[in-house]
Amino acid sequence: MNRLNPHISVDCVIFGFDEKQLKVLLIERERLQDENLDIPMEVLKLPGSLISDAEDLDASAHRVLLELTGLDKIFLHQFSVFGDPSRLANTKHLAWLKATSGLPIERVVTVAYYSLVKIKESNPSETLLSRAKWISVNELPQLVFDHNIIINKALKTLRKELRTEPIGFELLPKKFTLRQLQNLYEVIMGINLDNRNFRKRVGKLSYLAVLPEKQKGVSHKPAFLYKFDKKAFEKERKDVGFVI
Amino acid sequence: MNRLNPHISVDCVIFGFDEKQLKVLLIERERLQDENLDIPMEVLKLPGSLISDAEDLDASAHRVLLELTGLDKIFLHQFSVFGDPSRLANTKHLAWLKATSGLPIERVVTVAYYSLVKIKESNPSETLLSRAKWISVNELPQLVFDHNIIINKALKTLRKELRTEPIGFELLPKKFTLRQLQNLYEVIMGINLDNRNFRKRVGKLSYLAVLPEKQKGVSHKPAFLYKFDKKAFEKERKDVGFVI
Repeated sequence: MNRLNPHISVDCVIFGFDEKQLKVLLIERERLQDENLDIPMEVLKLPGSLISDAEDLDASAHRVLLELTGLDKIFLHQFSVFGDPSRLANTKHLAWLKATSGLPIERVVTVAYYSLVKIKESNPSETLLSRAKWISVNELPQLVFDHNIIINKALKTLRKELRTEPIGFELLPKKFTLRQLQNLYEVIMGINLDNRNFRKRVGKLSYLAVLPEKQKGVSHKPAFLYKFDKKAFEKERKDVGFVI
Repeated sequence: MNRLNPHISVDCVIFGFDEKQLKVLLIERERLQDENLDIPMEVLKLPGSLISDAEDLDASAHRVLLELTGLDKIFLHQFSVFGDPSRLANTKHLAWLKATSGLPIERVVTVAYYSLVKIKESNPSETLLSRAKWISVNELPQLVFDHNIIINKALKTLRKELRTEPIGFELLPKKFTLRQLQNLYEVIMGINLDNRNFRKRVGKLSYLAVLPEKQKGVSHKPAFLYKFDKKAFEKERKDVGFVI
């Protein structure tokens, strides 16, 4: 039995919605003083860190996020653990990790968290630290370690949750148009939806209530406003809850 | 930064459906030679073990399950990590763990997996080892460590998955009655469903196809048979996939 226990880390995949794109929050890794710039190494990584002694995993994730990006009070969902013994097989990455941590690391099992936030609200420019950046999920470069794999799995989880939990409505204004709802689905799912089919589908949803009012101050024909009816949603959920 | 890394373990919550009850597979823990029987300690636990050196987490979980219960080739879903520093706070449990592992353990972070199987098919009596037992989820005793908490979270995950993934159909015969489907939902969700409402709800599902044949060889009025239409399900899923 192994006595050289693996190190344990947490990594946070923070998705940001800005109405046009789905982005992910990355940070520039620390540069080493003696870094060999002739053999370039990936520059961006997820906010993450080894956990501290006697620190709960969730607390670690929140601490790391605050320290590295300045973001606080974000709901984090633990979604997967990455423990493949070869995930640090890239010798340059491993050497960097040993140098920056000062630890004789051979294996790290990382617990991954994700979140979805509105970029505008969660990120007034003064809170986000300078080394943190929002990058579109469609324009991700090669990242350090297996962080591209972690983001892919987080994205798959987010898209599944969007189908099964009312998380999307939290990103919309309280009263929204069907166009806004469709745009949210299109951006997060990364697909184009047929307008007519979309309207037909949402028309059947008991928890989407049309309001007796229309958009104001728009140059085009004003559209009806809708709201998410949480009570109707909970009621239906309590019922049977079939997969669709 | 902590240099005494926590140990890492895997634990498996195997749910079994036997048409009347939802059960979970537990094993009798090893007894210590000098165990103080005056202060009784919990006897049952989840199949689980510390991971070995250079072993992937999924591989660990499968190995442990085979070694402790005899069950093989079961699909395991990793669903959560339990890393609360106080999860081994019970000194009797910790002493037992140190004695049986021979390791100076202080903290264990465990990666938890769950699965759902038909008891009849996955468990011909000759495969299940004698120390493994199926216990109804409604009659669970107090288990070792935080294993009751782990099972509760697994059950919550299973019930959510039953709403959002077609996992239930794998437990039914290829052709089934609505009564069988309702029973499956009732047993796994742990609720009673109103027959009329249930039939109304499932009648709307595009992926549940009624067959032009009825039950045979039953003493009561034979019921229509249904099948799960995977293609219709995938099509609908590709569409938008709203939460219900």
